[in-house]
Amino acid sequence: MTSTDQTPLRVAVIGAGGRMGSEACRAVEAATDLELVAALGRDDELSTITDAGAQVAVDLTVPSVTAQNVRWLVEHGIHAVVGTTGWTEETLGDLRSQLEGADGVGVLIAPNFAIGAVLAMRFAEVAARYYDSAEIIEMHHPDKLDAPSGTARHTAAAIARGRKAAGLGAVPDATQKDPDGARGAVVDGIHVHAVRQRGLVAHEVVQFGGPGEQFQLRHDSFDRASFMPGVLLGVREVAAHPGLTVGLDGYLELG
Amino acid sequence: MTSTDQTPLRVAVIGAGGRMGSEACRAVEAATDLELVAALGRDDELSTITDAGAQVAVDLTVPSVTAQNVRWLVEHGIHAVVGTTGWTEETLGDLRSQLEGADGVGVLIAPNFAIGAVLAMRFAEVAARYYDSAEIIEMHHPDKLDAPSGTARHTAAAIARGRKAAGLGAVPDATQKDPDGARGAVVDGIHVHAVRQRGLVAHEVVQFGGPGEQFQLRHDSFDRASFMPGVLLGVREVAAHPGLTVGLDGYLELG
Amino acid sequence: MTSTDQTPLRVAVIGAGGRMGSEACRAVEAATDLELVAALGRDDELSTITDAGAQVAVDLTVPSVTAQNVRWLVEHGIHAVVGTTGWTEETLGDLRSQLEGADGVGVLIAPNFAIGAVLAMRFAEVAARYYDSAEIIEMHHPDKLDAPSGTARHTAAAIARGRKAAGLGAVPDATQKDPDGARGAVVDGIHVHAVRQRGLVAHEVVQFGGPGEQFQLRHDSFDRASFMPGVLLGVREVAAHPGLTVGLDGYLELG
Amino acid sequence: MTSTDQTPLRVAVIGAGGRMGSEACRAVEAATDLELVAALGRDDELSTITDAGAQVAVDLTVPSVTAQNVRWLVEHGIHAVVGTTGWTEETLGDLRSQLEGADGVGVLIAPNFAIGAVLAMRFAEVAARYYDSAEIIEMHHPDKLDAPSGTARHTAAAIARGRKAAGLGAVPDATQKDPDGARGAVVDGIHVHAVRQRGLVAHEVVQFGGPGEQFQLRHDSFDRASFMPGVLLGVREVAAHPGLTVGLDGYLELG
Repeated sequence: MTSTDQTPLRVAVIGAGGRMGSEACRAVEAATDLELVAALGRDDELSTITDAGAQVAVDLTVPSVTAQNVRWLVEHGIHAVVGTTGWTEETLGDLRSQLEGADGVGVLIAPNFAIGAVLAMRFAEVAARYYDSAEIIEMHHPDKLDAPSGTARHTAAAIARGRKAAGLGAVPDATQKDPDGARGAVVDGIHVHAVRQRGLVAHEVVQFGGPGEQFQLRHDSFDRASFMPGVLLGVREVAAHPGLTVGLDGYLELG
Repeated sequence: MTSTDQTPLRVAVIGAGGRMGSEACRAVEAATDLELVAALGRDDELSTITDAGAQVAVDLTVPSVTAQNVRWLVEHGIHAVVGTTGWTEETLGDLRSQLEGADGVGVLIAPNFAIGAVLAMRFAEVAARYYDSAEIIEMHHPDKLDAPSGTARHTAAAIARGRKAAGLGAVPDATQKDPDGARGAVVDGIHVHAVRQRGLVAHEVVQFGGPGEQFQLRHDSFDRASFMPGVLLGVREVAAHPGLTVGLDGYLELG
Repeated sequence: MTSTDQTPLRVAVIGAGGRMGSEACRAVEAATDLELVAALGRDDELSTITDAGAQVAVDLTVPSVTAQNVRWLVEHGIHAVVGTTGWTEETLGDLRSQLEGADGVGVLIAPNFAIGAVLAMRFAEVAARYYDSAEIIEMHHPDKLDAPSGTARHTAAAIARGRKAAGLGAVPDATQKDPDGARGAVVDGIHVHAVRQRGLVAHEVVQFGGPGEQFQLRHDSFDRASFMPGVLLGVREVAAHPGLTVGLDGYLELG
Repeated sequence: MTSTDQTPLRVAVIGAGGRMGSEACRAVEAATDLELVAALGRDDELSTITDAGAQVAVDLTVPSVTAQNVRWLVEHGIHAVVGTTGWTEETLGDLRSQLEGADGVGVLIAPNFAIGAVLAMRFAEVAARYYDSAEIIEMHHPDKLDAPSGTARHTAAAIARGRKAAGLGAVPDATQKDPDGARGAVVDGIHVHAVRQRGLVAHEVVQFGGPGEQFQLRHDSFDRASFMPGVLLGVREVAAHPGLTVGLDGYLELG
């Protein structure tokens, strides 16, 4: 075990040609305890990963291929750290089944690697108990393909859990006339709004309201570099967490 | 003319039982140059206004009755200051026709009496020329019946005018998948989001974005008292503006 | 014990003529499990409280008299819920000594009764571990006499504790030239800024920053009514917490 | 004159080794109507500029040398676009005197090249007329040497002009006790607060307040790229504005 501490962990990055992927390659290369042994672009075969002897692979690809990538990784006994969105209850269920037979392999699927987003989600669940109203506004660059963001969906679920624990019912809303859908999406009973704006990267605002009072949580990622501490934490810890973990908070101490 | 300056202007308030209406009654009573001669609740006849000799009437009722109230006022030669929303192109057109034959009668329909909201709209039109992206988030108490707010609709129109003047096309938005409508309403090409939250009153945020940059305008009305300076300005100036004026900015000097 | 549950708790309010005090009187009167037995203005004798048989007294007076009020209450075996600021290490120490000999008497000194402010403080201590930078901006109405607010001072202390626990040193700050003091106050190593603005009530923003990232907590009290749930909680719970408790969070379950 | 339109303008950048300077070099090189003929680092002689035949020089150096750089440029008939802060009434006066004898030479000193900052300043002057209270919060990365920013100082001056035009007196502020200076700097009667936070670049918030109301302007520069449209505009227009212009707004149409 001591020798493991001294030998750098062998890491592959899938989706290395993308913006997050290239940032992740740089971050892995800069870390003295990690070694980048494979960086796969769109046309590279997954076998490159086994050929290079990677122990952990980071998947930063696109929703259409991430599930099959991770299936392949687990088949080959490689731990996976996944930042791609697009996972459904069905694909997560399939993965859980597969992992039951894959002794010791760990998979981390993190909707957001920014520590601030994880804090926002955790705090949102606690604060939700104390307020009548709760809404989410997520804001991203205008090249994002889906709305709302996975982080916003997870935050809505966290708020819903907090409200349920406190015995709160539906949020107050007297809207009778909203012909154009200005009230946005409703996710787990919580209204979620998605802004797309040039110059922004990834931002989330969670607002709570009670009589005469407002409480707000806000997280801003101005730069993809802000996700890298979370990615590296995932890479370092994934082998110690066999099975499926959804959310970076499972790896943190947020007492 | 000099005697007019010394005799208080005779003012009626229609919708005096509502929250805005009762605030307006207090504000008129507190102003030394104005006299509250009639305060009409839900069941009062409009003839109370002529009986009391009102020169100006403030309509703060509900969308279903405001158009007929104003028609009656114009028929009886009484200037009208209207804060009720719900006017359509059709009802506005009918009113314009009526006013052509009503010599010297002035009507002000103001979607928002808060000076800050008017500033936000004006500045939004200027700023819109310089940015790729523009979105609006309006936030109100959860008892509001319609979404988005009239102010937000007017602000969207102002932004659209500014963009057109600068030769800008559609805002950038790559969204392909938004199953729950998180991108909100689209008004004149501008996305508008409506938040409903206990403890809030009336708030509007206008966000502009370009490469590496954000510009924001925000107006918060914490209290209905914030609308009263605009209502009183309208009451004092409406006789000097015959015909229909839509928007308080027509009465202000804004640079 | 069961009879206690059915008999309303007898409550006195000291400083009943002030804005917070009059709000507290209304809140106590509106609560079916509490009875307002004395409401003391500036010129009333403290003996009114014992004459009325109060079990708990709420002190919402001014910094110059609160310490002697509470000393008197403890002497007479009356539990105290204190919202007045101005307590020093010295006056708190004296109170602690006095309470050692006052069997079963409870005192709650809460710098802020708004649940949102308490959440902000608690969350600030947790988040502080993960960020290089932390600053506080508090904003109040312009009639406030002292700066920064007691809540901001307590939040700075909470951040300092969080940073210390995480082994963080001083916040980064290369400022060499600040002739007019724009960097604000430094409380426990944390910069604190105080804004005074007409139309505001009581607001606090806590900002954390790391590379490419920002995390923000914000609490807005738009109305003194927002403090009342916390005051009533204190009144109901103080007898169950003998000795001195500083901060409403000692009475809450915060995850 | 027509040939001028087709021949690229010859541009030098002084301070090319700095962050803003290197960004400006890239921006000039990317513009088809401009040619980068000299890029001076710390140790380069100013004569490099005349040797290269530059028509316009961009100064992005440091407060200690900018005034002597610009003096030299004007002596040699080269138009100057200056983004360096640190100019005083005295150095500006000297420059104005020099320019009186330098026929046709133009100098633009812009405290901020971000169009959003210029909009914020202009709008601040207009809005200032309508509100009792006004304060400024500027926020920058923690490597900034001076506080408050030049932009914040200029914004304070603009607010002061707006207030004076409207006949407003001092902002309301009852603060009696502020032992640590939390109320920040006072510039032209306006309180200015400077936040220094890792992850931020350059941000300004201007807040106005009246009874029950708040109006806010906010500008965020997330990236130095956001300053380049302003720098290029200055480079292209400076020859058409002989003499000294302070502020990019002198080159814009902000009607």
